[in-house]
Amino acid sequence: MKTLEWRALFGQGAERIQASTIRELLKLTQRPGIISFAGGLPAPELFPKAEAAEKAAEILKEKGEVALQYGPTEGYLPLRAFVAEWLGVEVEEVLITTGSQQALDLLGKVFLDEGAPVLLEAPSYLGAIQAFRAYGPRFLTVPTGEEGPDLEALAEVLKEGPRFLYLIPSFQNPSGGLMPLWARERLLEMVMEKGLLVVEDDAYRELYFGESRVKSLFELAREAGYPGVIYLSSFSKILAPGLRVAFAVAHPEALLKLTQAKQGVDLHTPVLNQILVLELLKEGLLEHLSRVRRVYRDKAQAMLEALEKEMPKEVAFTRPKGGMFVWMELPQGLSAEALFHKALEEKVAFVPGGPFFALGGGENTLRLSYATMDQAAIAEGVRRLGKALRALLTPA
Amino acid sequence: MKTLEWRALFGQGAERIQASTIRELLKLTQRPGIISFAGGLPAPELFPKAEAAEKAAEILKEKGEVALQYGPTEGYLPLRAFVAEWLGVEVEEVLITTGSQQALDLLGKVFLDEGAPVLLEAPSYLGAIQAFRAYGPRFLTVPTGEEGPDLEALAEVLKEGPRFLYLIPSFQNPSGGLMPLWARERLLEMVMEKGLLVVEDDAYRELYFGESRVKSLFELAREAGYPGVIYLSSFSKILAPGLRVAFAVAHPEALLKLTQAKQGVDLHTPVLNQILVLELLKEGLLEHLSRVRRVYRDKAQAMLEALEKEMPKEVAFTRPKGGMFVWMELPQGLSAEALFHKALEEKVAFVPGGPFFALGGGENTLRLSYATMDQAAIAEGVRRLGKALRALLTPA
Repeated sequence: MKTLEWRALFGQGAERIQASTIRELLKLTQRPGIISFAGGLPAPELFPKAEAAEKAAEILKEKGEVALQYGPTEGYLPLRAFVAEWLGVEVEEVLITTGSQQALDLLGKVFLDEGAPVLLEAPSYLGAIQAFRAYGPRFLTVPTGEEGPDLEALAEVLKEGPRFLYLIPSFQNPSGGLMPLWARERLLEMVMEKGLLVVEDDAYRELYFGESRVKSLFELAREAGYPGVIYLSSFSKILAPGLRVAFAVAHPEALLKLTQAKQGVDLHTPVLNQILVLELLKEGLLEHLSRVRRVYRDKAQAMLEALEKEMPKEVAFTRPKGGMFVWMELPQGLSAEALFHKALEEKVAFVPGGPFFALGGGENTLRLSYATMDQAAIAEGVRRLGKALRALLTPA
Repeated sequence: MKTLEWRALFGQGAERIQASTIRELLKLTQRPGIISFAGGLPAPELFPKAEAAEKAAEILKEKGEVALQYGPTEGYLPLRAFVAEWLGVEVEEVLITTGSQQALDLLGKVFLDEGAPVLLEAPSYLGAIQAFRAYGPRFLTVPTGEEGPDLEALAEVLKEGPRFLYLIPSFQNPSGGLMPLWARERLLEMVMEKGLLVVEDDAYRELYFGESRVKSLFELAREAGYPGVIYLSSFSKILAPGLRVAFAVAHPEALLKLTQAKQGVDLHTPVLNQILVLELLKEGLLEHLSRVRRVYRDKAQAMLEALEKEMPKEVAFTRPKGGMFVWMELPQGLSAEALFHKALEEKVAFVPGGPFFALGGGENTLRLSYATMDQAAIAEGVRRLGKALRALLTPA
């Protein structure tokens, strides 16, 4: 076989496309016997398997010609209409995407280019960093915590005129943080004053443990008559991620450009999946959502109780008010990656926090997901994690 | 509502992202009563509706935890293994993509950048032009016809060192051309001598009307020990496009980079769709394929017979040996777009050829698809098209 210098054939942009280190680590966590708090995989016991089986068969039998044929790039109209009604927007403002990951890529394609400043929380969602990085932007970051981004630091960074702010105000991935209403209002004021664009990723919008949702930046901006918030959410966390159906809501002018970009990247999201999601949504959504919330709240509770019991006092961790994640800070100087390998020996896994920082740092942080495991496994996993930690903290 | 200057917010790359004019025209063709030869929509009567209904229900019931959960970026392993065995390659060389359109976008992301030369046939697949254009390359083109690209012209253009050649050797979209074996061998020699990369789009590989397939460039290159052909194909034309399942085959080094790029654009292709395709493939594939070929051959025959009868002698059209398209040339000076509007009055539609030429031209060409309509509609549609044509050719 002849050989080709593939690296020489790649374009300049290919340098920026790298395997996520986390994905490499995740492979290690799939060994048998390991309790994994690593992946953000939704709880499989919540998947509506039986309903999906019934609906899928019905759809394919009764409108197979539609479900199996090419469809419009904007998405299946009845699903767009459902989303529009759900969110109180116009159907022309809704684009169905192949997971929220696709929306992130489309945003990069439309709004970013080489050297363009873009603002992210530190830490932020790894998939967003990866999607944006392919377009070669200049990352700006603002520290974020249990109450969202540090607004004083934000005021400084906004002076650099980012193309957009990418924020996850509710149950942030990975930090688990929740911006309170006052902080959202304050942030919006700052953004509106400068006419800046915000991309609000609200993947976890329904997974609140309290009485109700905090209003989204998008809703607040609409109330203030400000069109500069693009809203992303997904059916991955409330129905099933494997279907890859999500949506973006934006001002029609922005939505048109995103739709044109989507045409070039996958023509349209699979039609069968869109109809299936719609049919599942129509079937007792509210009841399903309250079950989903209860399950995650109980799992979070189980993890927090175990953490209180097992963690040495040098270790800090968040108390999530929703979502899927606990964020942990080890004492300075203790590396989460070292703990990762020690924990693997004890057959428990998590994700080191470093890769979630677009500009580096966070080596002593880590993310624990309580979403996938059942409560018994959560308790046992945290016990193992405590053992691994104590082994590292106690000099041999 | 405040207003935002969206154009000022877009990145530089957004300029290159435009609505395809054809998509705009296609909207006009969806009016009731219109016989459309415009879209390349596979024949809906060939969709395996009942089988898909049964299999989908089975999959969701029996392995819903897998079908509805996040999956690996490379694709569902048993489907990759099926494709690998089908094509005689290694499983590590197979990437499942969300339609071939996604593979085109990924190729752009990995191999192209601003000003990079890339070689296309003129005319070529519109979706490829659109996907590549987003990366700002410099298009080089070579005229193509019933026997594929003009090899003398190609030899000249190759001197410009394109990052890759994008070719559709079998039943080209839109020209319907089929490169004979000798031309494929000659082309490969030229490419191998220069160590160039070829992207072979073989979406129509199974839709041959004769006894057998002509060997693909990919197969010929493998036989010659040359790794520089990336092979794309899809289940859209043989099973159902609405599922958005396709595949790319490439040298592991190239495949790894494409996979990393895919991670950032949609994480993975929907798992349910991949398992469903696999289950449908396992069920009497050969028999299904011979039915598909027969149906398209009969439709092509019906269209050619009607064209022979109805077309004025000034009009030239191809005789496809497979695929979905007849390519037509009007007398110079007669615009296909003018004919398009005249034809709409007669309630028949097609696609003007101009947009398929990356560098312009082809205003007197058009594409007719016989894939979607039944034979009676094909005959009637061609009759209407003849009437529209004669109205344009005969000065009032």
